[in-house]
Amino acid sequence: MKKVALIMGSDSDLPIMEKAVGVLKELEIPFAVHVYSAHRTPEEARDFAIHAKENGFGVLICAAGMAAHLAGAFAANTTLPVIGIPCTSQALDGMDALLSTVMMPSGIPVATVAINGSKNAALLAAEILALSDDALDKRLEEKRTKDAENVREKDRTISARFSE
Amino acid sequence: MKKVALIMGSDSDLPIMEKAVGVLKELEIPFAVHVYSAHRTPEEARDFAIHAKENGFGVLICAAGMAAHLAGAFAANTTLPVIGIPCTSQALDGMDALLSTVMMPSGIPVATVAINGSKNAALLAAEILALSDDALDKRLEEKRTKDAENVREKDRTISARFSE
Amino acid sequence: MKKVALIMGSDSDLPIMEKAVGVLKELEIPFAVHVYSAHRTPEEARDFAIHAKENGFGVLICAAGMAAHLAGAFAANTTLPVIGIPCTSQALDGMDALLSTVMMPSGIPVATVAINGSKNAALLAAEILALSDDALDKRLEEKRTKDAENVREKDRTISARFSE
Amino acid sequence: MKKVALIMGSDSDLPIMEKAVGVLKELEIPFAVHVYSAHRTPEEARDFAIHAKENGFGVLICAAGMAAHLAGAFAANTTLPVIGIPCTSQALDGMDALLSTVMMPSGIPVATVAINGSKNAALLAAEILALSDDALDKRLEEKRTKDAENVREKDRTISARFSE
Amino acid sequence: MKKVALIMGSDSDLPIMEKAVGVLKELEIPFAVHVYSAHRTPEEARDFAIHAKENGFGVLICAAGMAAHLAGAFAANTTLPVIGIPCTSQALDGMDALLSTVMMPSGIPVATVAINGSKNAALLAAEILALSDDALDKRLEEKRTKDAENVREKDRTISARFSE
Amino acid sequence: MKKVALIMGSDSDLPIMEKAVGVLKELEIPFAVHVYSAHRTPEEARDFAIHAKENGFGVLICAAGMAAHLAGAFAANTTLPVIGIPCTSQALDGMDALLSTVMMPSGIPVATVAINGSKNAALLAAEILALSDDALDKRLEEKRTKDAENVREKDRTISARFSE
Amino acid sequence: MKKVALIMGSDSDLPIMEKAVGVLKELEIPFAVHVYSAHRTPEEARDFAIHAKENGFGVLICAAGMAAHLAGAFAANTTLPVIGIPCTSQALDGMDALLSTVMMPSGIPVATVAINGSKNAALLAAEILALSDDALDKRLEEKRTKDAENVREKDRTISARFSE
Amino acid sequence: MKKVALIMGSDSDLPIMEKAVGVLKELEIPFAVHVYSAHRTPEEARDFAIHAKENGFGVLICAAGMAAHLAGAFAANTTLPVIGIPCTSQALDGMDALLSTVMMPSGIPVATVAINGSKNAALLAAEILALSDDALDKRLEEKRTKDAENVREKDRTISARFSE
Repeated sequence: MKKVALIMGSDSDLPIMEKAVGVLKELEIPFAVHVYSAHRTPEEARDFAIHAKENGFGVLICAAGMAAHLAGAFAANTTLPVIGIPCTSQALDGMDALLSTVMMPSGIPVATVAINGSKNAALLAAEILALSDDALDKRLEEKRTKDAENVREKDRTISARFSE
Repeated sequence: MKKVALIMGSDSDLPIMEKAVGVLKELEIPFAVHVYSAHRTPEEARDFAIHAKENGFGVLICAAGMAAHLAGAFAANTTLPVIGIPCTSQALDGMDALLSTVMMPSGIPVATVAINGSKNAALLAAEILALSDDALDKRLEEKRTKDAENVREKDRTISARFSE
Repeated sequence: MKKVALIMGSDSDLPIMEKAVGVLKELEIPFAVHVYSAHRTPEEARDFAIHAKENGFGVLICAAGMAAHLAGAFAANTTLPVIGIPCTSQALDGMDALLSTVMMPSGIPVATVAINGSKNAALLAAEILALSDDALDKRLEEKRTKDAENVREKDRTISARFSE
Repeated sequence: MKKVALIMGSDSDLPIMEKAVGVLKELEIPFAVHVYSAHRTPEEARDFAIHAKENGFGVLICAAGMAAHLAGAFAANTTLPVIGIPCTSQALDGMDALLSTVMMPSGIPVATVAINGSKNAALLAAEILALSDDALDKRLEEKRTKDAENVREKDRTISARFSE
Repeated sequence: MKKVALIMGSDSDLPIMEKAVGVLKELEIPFAVHVYSAHRTPEEARDFAIHAKENGFGVLICAAGMAAHLAGAFAANTTLPVIGIPCTSQALDGMDALLSTVMMPSGIPVATVAINGSKNAALLAAEILALSDDALDKRLEEKRTKDAENVREKDRTISARFSE
Repeated sequence: MKKVALIMGSDSDLPIMEKAVGVLKELEIPFAVHVYSAHRTPEEARDFAIHAKENGFGVLICAAGMAAHLAGAFAANTTLPVIGIPCTSQALDGMDALLSTVMMPSGIPVATVAINGSKNAALLAAEILALSDDALDKRLEEKRTKDAENVREKDRTISARFSE
Repeated sequence: MKKVALIMGSDSDLPIMEKAVGVLKELEIPFAVHVYSAHRTPEEARDFAIHAKENGFGVLICAAGMAAHLAGAFAANTTLPVIGIPCTSQALDGMDALLSTVMMPSGIPVATVAINGSKNAALLAAEILALSDDALDKRLEEKRTKDAENVREKDRTISARFSE
Repeated sequence: MKKVALIMGSDSDLPIMEKAVGVLKELEIPFAVHVYSAHRTPEEARDFAIHAKENGFGVLICAAGMAAHLAGAFAANTTLPVIGIPCTSQALDGMDALLSTVMMPSGIPVATVAINGSKNAALLAAEILALSDDALDKRLEEKRTKDAENVREKDRTISARFSE
């Protein structure tokens, strides 16, 4: 199976990224984790993006805050699907990262998920890889079913508590 | 090749969707176009989503404005990748559609592109399908190269105009 | 009397919903409480909405955060009045839930109250049911009078404290 | 049947209110139309609200822009359900009217619809009145069915146009 | 001297209002403090406003949060200058109260100060009353001079600390 | 009677200021009009503010757009009441001017009115001057009564049109 | 004198950039104009930035809209001062470009000016170059004086028109 | 070398400013620190700005919150480059200070950095001064290289932790 790259712009984003790691492990998807900054280590970011396809990666997930250029910088250097996670930082509640990630100009798309939405980023990567991997597709559907059952269980508990 | 579904919440979104149609035709990707409303025809929307995988679709692109639930409603009923295009409407400049599309809760991802960003939605769908289609991957890279050449041509024209 | 359904998209919204429960009990309005997710258990949500009228419900109250589609998803499947409570979550201070709930397209209304405004959601449901229930109407007016008296009491205390 | 009051804060809101008039006529719901300003004619606004119930009104719909206090001022003087329509004006794209209408403090609810959402305000009033009027309930469901058929017709036209 | 009325929409705004009390006492301006709610005790609010002029008040200061109608409701019932203080509450960081207070329609002005800006509200009331009270004008100018000296003292301390 | 100064940061704000002129003339309040820029002619702005009191001015009205420092710059140099009008410009719909005008730090108040709210700025100045001018107070109350009658006239016209 | 580079992300930004050209010509500052896209021609952008210092440039001015990464991408590859101009595009009124340009993470600064503020970008570049060029410093001060005189001229015209 | 002035509008901004002090010391750039308020000590602020050039300053850095006029007030009185740092305060998360600082009208530029972005303000000042100081330019490039190495070290640590 093609690998997923999990790239964060700063190691302060690690707690958010670890939730994506958890989802990928649960779905048995191979991955690598990196810290690359679009601004402080632009060469490393560019080299990784240019060679990602030949190095066996299928999807890149980029998490960054503030003027979050990371996903866009990777997308500029590869035609692999790039998923962007806007992260909250000390001000503006993540709105700066959201707009910097999602409002990409025509020609270079970034698949943006919710602010701090690392689990959904991993699930989206899984959905993409599952298009050509039936076993993964099955694991993904089973996880969806299990998640639904969790909600149903909570409904039973809570609806019972409030009925006499 | 798997097909792309282009779904709009209202026929008023057609001018935006036609730009996505143009990109898919240029890249020779098969597609179907539909008008389904998450609110006014929820049954049709649900049925399409549930059967999209078996009907040969690989990616769903949903465009909607205001409280844009369309992409989320499709994503709730399939594990295929769903791309959301938030559309501007009469007020709030698309911010309502952007937040309604991108801020999905954990478990059900929507790959969101820029407000009215239909070309990028089509390109993202192409990047996803190209993971298992080398010919499409080649066409996508050629388009990227051609787009870059267009920018370079504009640079030559404009930089020449301003130099004596 | 027709019942009120209190539906939350996640059990993390329970503390907010319990304030609505308190108001309904005080006004002696029958109710049921459920956890349904528009995205993770769309079938259960849809079935409840479709059968709500025949099951004796008069008003549905839906509380959800982020891209809050819950109220809209219920409104799409019933002509009963649906009240939406946008809830705060980890980012954007509830603005995402507010716009996702209130900016419904033409044809499918959602009666939206303030962010986290569960007490007002219950009062609005009571006002609606009181249109055909004179005893409830009387209890509602008495509660309004009592609330006003509380404010007057506070005015007496505070105005006295600051006058010599 | 109880009547619906359509109240606008300024006659410049008339084009928006006329869409609500159209829906009420289509559903055969009796109504009255007024111009009352919470700020410039507070006495008239207050008197109307205080006597609305005894004058045969069941629902009040208030449309106003800017610091839109109209719906709240009516809600403060009646326990009838009050629906607020925030209107766009020359600046801020309706966000000022939305927040002024929807963020009501605990105790006095306003059922808020989308910015300029007058059709949905009328439909919401109809849903409320239909709770105790089976004939109206039937007309409302028929309208919902007809609206859905319109969307289906558009889907047939557009999906046919894009398929070879 | 005419009195200043300090009116809050809820006793939870008291800590903010006490800063205004401090400024008025420092400037020897007579005042009264009240809790009136535009929504929960509209009659009391209206009566106070209508009789404020004849009761010896010169300026009204109104502090409220959320859909803050308090200042506007007072301004609608008097031609005395009304100062509005938008207060923060549990969501939206005061933006809802700011827009509800400042965006008044033509005809009924509210003099709005910063979010939670109760000291400036008291100073503005003092500036207004000082127009016809030379002794107050002198106290106000002395306070301005003293405040400036405080800043200068801080400049001396800090600039010294950072110079070798 | 003390005079009102109408100051705009740029002559492009003249159409907005002329509405204030109209109100002042109607209320027979003497005034002067100036173009001073807090940034491009800071000396003239400062000199006017410092000498405004001795030159017979009672209230200063400042209109400016973008990072609207004009009102604050005047308020910093006088203890006369300063009214700020935030003006729309080419971007951000006046939100930049609103926040730059209203969010003044403690010590230096600016009485802020709505975006482009020049009529209300003039009315607020009139309310302030009327505190020590009974004839103006009477004219102000008469204008308020006349404005209310205009709304009542519109109510009669529109309510008649929609009743059979 | 060192040159100024005027770089736009798209030739649609040319009308905005031409105002900067006008200021630079007026101040006799040498410049070059280019179209480089951070996303579509990342190599050209990077090469220009890396070699800008040795090629005689002293300041880089970058104008871009939407998720405006252009200034940040240049700043990542040079220690020359980089000035960013956020440009309006079809949605969000330039707020996306403003936050994408100004909210740079620690380590890589971008000197941001107002939305579409190309004249100020050129003036800022001139102020920077004037630090080591007394003749330019003199021209800059003369321009400042001339601009102030223009404002004074407008003040004389307008203040005269409104005085009897 | 020319000096950098670090000016804060209130001593509560000192913790933010101390980070700029750290960067300037590391780069061996001489500086002075002051507390000047555009509103409470306008004379001191103006005098400093007018004489900054002759007193050996090359760049002014101004940090302020709320309606942050400090940088603009300095820029109005000098043609030296002025850098503005918008600071967060008790409400609105710094958006008020950002817009008040960056949206300067044509003619008077302020080089704005991120909210609370004091390190970048100091680095930008260093980049400006380095244009005519080769030794500083070298120190700046070395710091850039060292910062990049820190990111690379974090990448090595984290990528190793997540690979088996």
